Amino acid sequence: MTMFDYKSRLSRTREELERLEADVLLVSLGSDLPYLTGYDAMPLERLTMAVIPRDGVATIVVPELEVPRVEPRPGLFVIEPWSETDDPIAIVASHARSAGRALIGDQTWAVFLLQLQQALPDTSFGSARPLSEALRIIKDPEEIDLLRQAGEVADGVARRLASHQFAGKSEALVSQEVGVMLEAGGNESVEFAIVGSGPNGASPHHEAGDRVITAGDPIVVDFGGRYRGYNSDTTRMFHVGEPTARYREVHGVVQAAQQAAFDAVRPGVTAEFVDAAARNVIEDAGYGDLFIHRTGHGIGLDAHEDPYIVAGNTQHLEPGMAFSIEPGIYLPGEFGVRIEDIVVCTNDGAQRLNNSPRDVAIVE
Amino acid sequence: MTMFDYKSRLSRTREELERLEADVLLVSLGSDLPYLTGYDAMPLERLTMAVIPRDGVATIVVPELEVPRVEPRPGLFVIEPWSETDDPIAIVASHARSAGRALIGDQTWAVFLLQLQQALPDTSFGSARPLSEALRIIKDPEEIDLLRQAGEVADGVARRLASHQFAGKSEALVSQEVGVMLEAGGNESVEFAIVGSGPNGASPHHEAGDRVITAGDPIVVDFGGRYRGYNSDTTRMFHVGEPTARYREVHGVVQAAQQAAFDAVRPGVTAEFVDAAARNVIEDAGYGDLFIHRTGHGIGLDAHEDPYIVAGNTQHLEPGMAFSIEPGIYLPGEFGVRIEDIVVCTNDGAQRLNNSPRDVAIVE
Repeated sequence: MTMFDYKSRLSRTREELERLEADVLLVSLGSDLPYLTGYDAMPLERLTMAVIPRDGVATIVVPELEVPRVEPRPGLFVIEPWSETDDPIAIVASHARSAGRALIGDQTWAVFLLQLQQALPDTSFGSARPLSEALRIIKDPEEIDLLRQAGEVADGVARRLASHQFAGKSEALVSQEVGVMLEAGGNESVEFAIVGSGPNGASPHHEAGDRVITAGDPIVVDFGGRYRGYNSDTTRMFHVGEPTARYREVHGVVQAAQQAAFDAVRPGVTAEFVDAAARNVIEDAGYGDLFIHRTGHGIGLDAHEDPYIVAGNTQHLEPGMAFSIEPGIYLPGEFGVRIEDIVVCTNDGAQRLNNSPRDVAIVE
Repeated sequence: MTMFDYKSRLSRTREELERLEADVLLVSLGSDLPYLTGYDAMPLERLTMAVIPRDGVATIVVPELEVPRVEPRPGLFVIEPWSETDDPIAIVASHARSAGRALIGDQTWAVFLLQLQQALPDTSFGSARPLSEALRIIKDPEEIDLLRQAGEVADGVARRLASHQFAGKSEALVSQEVGVMLEAGGNESVEFAIVGSGPNGASPHHEAGDRVITAGDPIVVDFGGRYRGYNSDTTRMFHVGEPTARYREVHGVVQAAQQAAFDAVRPGVTAEFVDAAARNVIEDAGYGDLFIHRTGHGIGLDAHEDPYIVAGNTQHLEPGMAFSIEPGIYLPGEFGVRIEDIVVCTNDGAQRLNNSPRDVAIVE
């Protein structure tokens, strides 16, 4: 199932190492490893680390018992297994010995960085993020396609929810049902399924809990899963019975803000310009203080990655960038409203990868 | 639902900082944070970090939008929110400014350690593992109780599997079914459900895939979930129809090795002594080269934690330590056998937290 051009990704990695004046890239947990090698290591205490020197042979140092899970890429990577009584840090250090400057993957565990710093006292360490951003921020057409498919599965779930029974169920049960629907749609994993009913909706990352949904509740449902490695992420609003005028007003403001940010996307504008487009609508309506998070985040192999759509990020958007647009208004003790789509920047502006109705869905 | 004594955990942390001659503990992702504060942060790019000085006020630096998820512990922790345009590293650094020596949680992302090293150039950083091990390796009675309940749910799943239909289903489907059973048993999350059929069983961490299980297949099923924060982990063997004599022999060796390690557990023996007890049985039977992993790992809030039951670990076992015993034999191209229980060390030796039958279950 190799659909990606790992050879070109490896040679781009080496170009980036040169540009960043670094000698070696060290990647462990996180999405850089599967992006570069096709191998997704489990987040465990046994070190897995790809050692990619600017010149010379790239090696994946991997626990012996995980070797059967690594698809060999002859000519690109040598697989070096370590057994339970070996010292994997010493093995990585032996491959990186002559490096003056090493870039290390952001999500590598701190304990391994500390050990590598000790094993390689003459090497300076920096974050691999500039490299990984340069490689991954513009998606391949194959990646866009997978993000689109992931989005379609999520949209299917959102559409089913519009005629779903909510009242009388706990948030936790609805969250579980969303998970089952995502898996039935072909997702290999459910990353999260936030169900925030009534006042719980005012906590953006509320954990679905014991609260039983009742008549008159607005409900934030924000969920995502992984489809062949790529993430979905969408938020839709549901309401048991007719919403109040106040709810309708807030929903309208959020929907207008979401549309404004969508309309602001085109190549060359900054990420913060898109954030401001949403924020201005909400501020103008008098709810500025209640929009307590950024407008969005990039998405791909990671659920959150570059580019971040946030004030202060002056990065220019380019075709092939994929990110969420998800403004929200949170009224503590009352309710919250958030509306979220994944979009891709194209030459003609933004294209939505989520297309289920954005109006509040009246449910039972 | 506060059942743990966070106050005593905090004062033990301060004693450990003193013993380890460190000035501050910095904990982010991983289980130290929930152990110490009751708060489990999501593994996201927004920094959450508890800053616990040896003397002075302990603070949890947390993204503003996560604040509603943090249960306040007045008198123990101050919650300091940061908004989307703040610099959380600067906030952490301001609290740790005078620290000569900082211990940082193992699973903290490397990118944050690099940033803290830059922000605090006069501070030396070390791993918090000695501290977190000292605190967490001996379980409270409340923790043992939760591990026991987690084990009972897992045993229920194992027992149901003994009369489950396997043949004709893909590994992936069976894996999904195991997940559903774990959740139905009250687990809040499914951590993994390895289903390795036929030759796939020879890869210890095989990812359940498209392979359809057929007559004559042995199947390794290794699964675990979280029950109120605490992990389960058990492995049982299934066989579609009667096993071959060769399979029976290998299964018998693994079962004897598992029993030998169990019998070896008592306060005062080393972790490696328990590993050797299992390994000797397998070596004596001529399969030593095919037992390619350690005998076990500690378990608690983390699925894998101290103590590791592995050659070279001379740590002495004490009552209250909980860990897996899971020897295996892996015949590449043929099949694998692994049998795993969680056990607790008590004054009278080991006590099993998994009690479903360890014989191979003949299934259809």
